[in-house]
Amino acid sequence: MKKIALLGSTGSIGTQTLDVVRAHPDKFKIVSLSFGKNTDAGLAQVHEFRPEIVSVQTKETAESIINELPSGTRLLYGEEGLTEAAAGNDADIVMSAVMGSVGLKPTLAAIEAGKDIAIANKETLVTAGHIVTEKAEKHGVELIPVDSEHSAIYQCLEDNADKEVSRIILTASGGSFRDKTREELKNVTVEDALKHPNWQMGAKITIDSATMMNKGLEVIEAKWLFNMPYEKIDVILHKESIIHSMVEYIDGSVLAHLGTPDMRVPIQYAVSKRERLELKGGEKLNLWEIGALHFDKPDFDRYRCLKLAFEAGAAGGTAPTVLNAANEVAVASFLNRKLSFLGIEDIVEDALSRHTPVASPSLEEIIAVDEETRRQVLTYMN
Amino acid sequence: MKKIALLGSTGSIGTQTLDVVRAHPDKFKIVSLSFGKNTDAGLAQVHEFRPEIVSVQTKETAESIINELPSGTRLLYGEEGLTEAAAGNDADIVMSAVMGSVGLKPTLAAIEAGKDIAIANKETLVTAGHIVTEKAEKHGVELIPVDSEHSAIYQCLEDNADKEVSRIILTASGGSFRDKTREELKNVTVEDALKHPNWQMGAKITIDSATMMNKGLEVIEAKWLFNMPYEKIDVILHKESIIHSMVEYIDGSVLAHLGTPDMRVPIQYAVSKRERLELKGGEKLNLWEIGALHFDKPDFDRYRCLKLAFEAGAAGGTAPTVLNAANEVAVASFLNRKLSFLGIEDIVEDALSRHTPVASPSLEEIIAVDEETRRQVLTYMN
Repeated sequence: MKKIALLGSTGSIGTQTLDVVRAHPDKFKIVSLSFGKNTDAGLAQVHEFRPEIVSVQTKETAESIINELPSGTRLLYGEEGLTEAAAGNDADIVMSAVMGSVGLKPTLAAIEAGKDIAIANKETLVTAGHIVTEKAEKHGVELIPVDSEHSAIYQCLEDNADKEVSRIILTASGGSFRDKTREELKNVTVEDALKHPNWQMGAKITIDSATMMNKGLEVIEAKWLFNMPYEKIDVILHKESIIHSMVEYIDGSVLAHLGTPDMRVPIQYAVSKRERLELKGGEKLNLWEIGALHFDKPDFDRYRCLKLAFEAGAAGGTAPTVLNAANEVAVASFLNRKLSFLGIEDIVEDALSRHTPVASPSLEEIIAVDEETRRQVLTYMN
Repeated sequence: MKKIALLGSTGSIGTQTLDVVRAHPDKFKIVSLSFGKNTDAGLAQVHEFRPEIVSVQTKETAESIINELPSGTRLLYGEEGLTEAAAGNDADIVMSAVMGSVGLKPTLAAIEAGKDIAIANKETLVTAGHIVTEKAEKHGVELIPVDSEHSAIYQCLEDNADKEVSRIILTASGGSFRDKTREELKNVTVEDALKHPNWQMGAKITIDSATMMNKGLEVIEAKWLFNMPYEKIDVILHKESIIHSMVEYIDGSVLAHLGTPDMRVPIQYAVSKRERLELKGGEKLNLWEIGALHFDKPDFDRYRCLKLAFEAGAAGGTAPTVLNAANEVAVASFLNRKLSFLGIEDIVEDALSRHTPVASPSLEEIIAVDEETRRQVLTYMN
C-alpha cells in the first residue's frame, strides 16, 4: 500500500491521480489532499478519499469549507498548509501537481522529510533544478517524472548506466499549429490554439504545446531529471504522439516508450514507484490500426520558443526562471486576448534579453527573479 | 574481460562476433573457435585470435590444417570436438552460432558446465526448448538471445516482472516478396528471393524471411526464451525493420527497441552480458531522415508458413522439430531450383500433417524425428 500526498487535486493531473487511486484501492491511499479555489470538486474528493490532511489556498477558502469536512480532518491553508500536506504526514510519495512556483517550498520540505516526489510541477525543476536534485541526492529520495515524455525516458533508462547513454530524444507533437507557417500564425485565435490534436490538457499547457515552449521546458526538466547535458538532448517532431520519447545508447540501440495518449499511465507508474498495474479502461496500442508513425526535424526558426528554452537552459542560473515566468504571463495575456500568439515568443525573448542570469541562485533569489520578471513583463505589455 | 567460446566462427554471426571482439580487445577474448569446412577463413581467424581450442567439422578437415595452426593450439573435430570447444574450457559465455541440430548437444554440455549461452542457433530452442530452458534454470545459466528481434524483447523486458507483461510483439519486414500477391509468388526465382530489402544475411535465412518461416521460428524461440504462451505473442509487419520488436505491459505501456539494421548490436549486447559498449563504425538511427515507420497486420493466408509455425508451436512436443526439418530440406531444394517458392509451405504442411507429435521428447527422440522428417521429405519430393 503506497500512501500518497496529493498536491493540486482538482487539476488535470490531480483528478487523474485520483482515478488511478480509485482503480486500485488495495494499492494506494490518499493521506493528504490540497486544492485551490475549486471547493466543490475538492470537497467531493475529500468525502470520497478521506485524507487525514486537507489544505486549501487561502484562509477564506478554509473558513468557507470548515463545516463541510468529515470529522477528524485536519484543515490547513496557504504555503504552510501546503508544506504540511506535503511533508507533515506519513506519505511514501508526494504527487506535486500544483501549478506554479507555489509548489517549490513544499516539495523541498517533502524531500527533507525523505519522501519520494512524483514531479508534475514544471517550476520545481525548471527554476530550481540544481537545488531540488542536490537535495534529493542528499536525502536519498527519488524524483519520479509524471510527464509522459519524461516517464518514457525514465522507463527506457532503467538500470542502464549513465555512461551508456548517448542521447535522449524528446518527441513533440508540434501542437495545434504544426501545419501552419509563421505567416499563418500571425492571426490565429485562442480557440484555434486550444484544439490540441492528440492530448486533452489544461489551457496553459495546450498553448505551450502550440508554441513548443512546453517542449522547451521539458528539455530543461530532462536536463535535471536525468543529469544530461543539453547537447545530449534532442527534440523530434512526431505528430502522432505514439512514441512518447526515446533513449539512444552508445551501442546504437534506441529504446522507446509507446502508447495511446493516456496520462494515467505515467501517473500510475510514478505513484506505484515502478510497479506496473493494470490500467482499467485503458486503450491498448494497436500499431497496425494506426498504420504509420511520422518524424520530422523541428525548425528552430519556426518554433522560436523551443530555441529560447535551449538558450535559457544553457545560460543556466536564473535564466530558466525568467523564461518560465515571462512565458506564463504572456500565455495568460494571450488567453485573455490581450496578446497575439506570436507575441508570446517576443515577450519571452525580450524578458531574457533584459536579464543577466544569477548563477546557482537560492530559492529566495529564484522567487524574487520570478516575481520581478512577471512585474516587468506586465509593465512592458501595458 | 569476457572469455568467449565461439561455435560457428565463419558464418554471418560468427564473423560479426569476431568484429565485436576485434573492436574491443580489452573486453573480450576468444578461448575457442569452431568452424566447418571453410578452412581458409577459419585459419585466418585462428591466427588472429589465438584461441586455445580449435574444433572443425571432420577428421579430414582437422588433418588438412593440423600443420597450419599456431603451436600449442588444441585441435579437435566432430561432435566431441564441438562439445569440448563449448564446454571444456574456461569461457564465460558460449556463442552458439553453428547451423542446424549439430549445435544441440554442445550447447547442453556448456549449460551443464555453467556457461551462459548466447543463442544464435535456431534448433536449440525451436526443437529442444523444453530441455534447454529446464537445464538452464537448473544450472543457473542465462540464455541470451542474439536475433535482433529477441534481443530487442530481452532489452525491453529487463527487470520488469513476468506478470506485468501482457504481450510481446515481434516485428517482421515481410521479406523480399512482401509486396507480391500469392498469384505472383508462383513464379518467383531464387535470385528474387535472395534480395532482402533490409538485412544482409545468409541464403537460408533470407528465404525463411521471404516465406516468414523465419518469423514463425522466432515465435517458437520467443515462447521458450521469455516463457510466454503463444496467445501472448504477436507478429506485426513493419517494412522498415527499424523497430526490432516490442513488449506490451499490463498498464498499456509498450517498450520498443529501435536501430539501424546491424547484427553487431545484439551480438555485442549478448557477449558483453548486457554491458553497452560503443559500436565502432555503427550507424546511428536518425528517425527524421527515415521520415515514417509503417505497420500492417500479417495475413496468415498470405504467409502460410507463419501460420504453420504457430500451429506447430501450439501442438508442441516434436511438432516444431518437424516444422524446422521439413522447412530446411524444402528451402535447400528451392535454392537448388528443385522446388518452387510456394512448394516450401506445401512440403512443411504435408510433413506436419503426417506427424503425430511426441510430447516432451528426449534429445534422442528429437534427433530421430529430425532425421526421419528429412528422409521422408526427400523421398516425398523425389
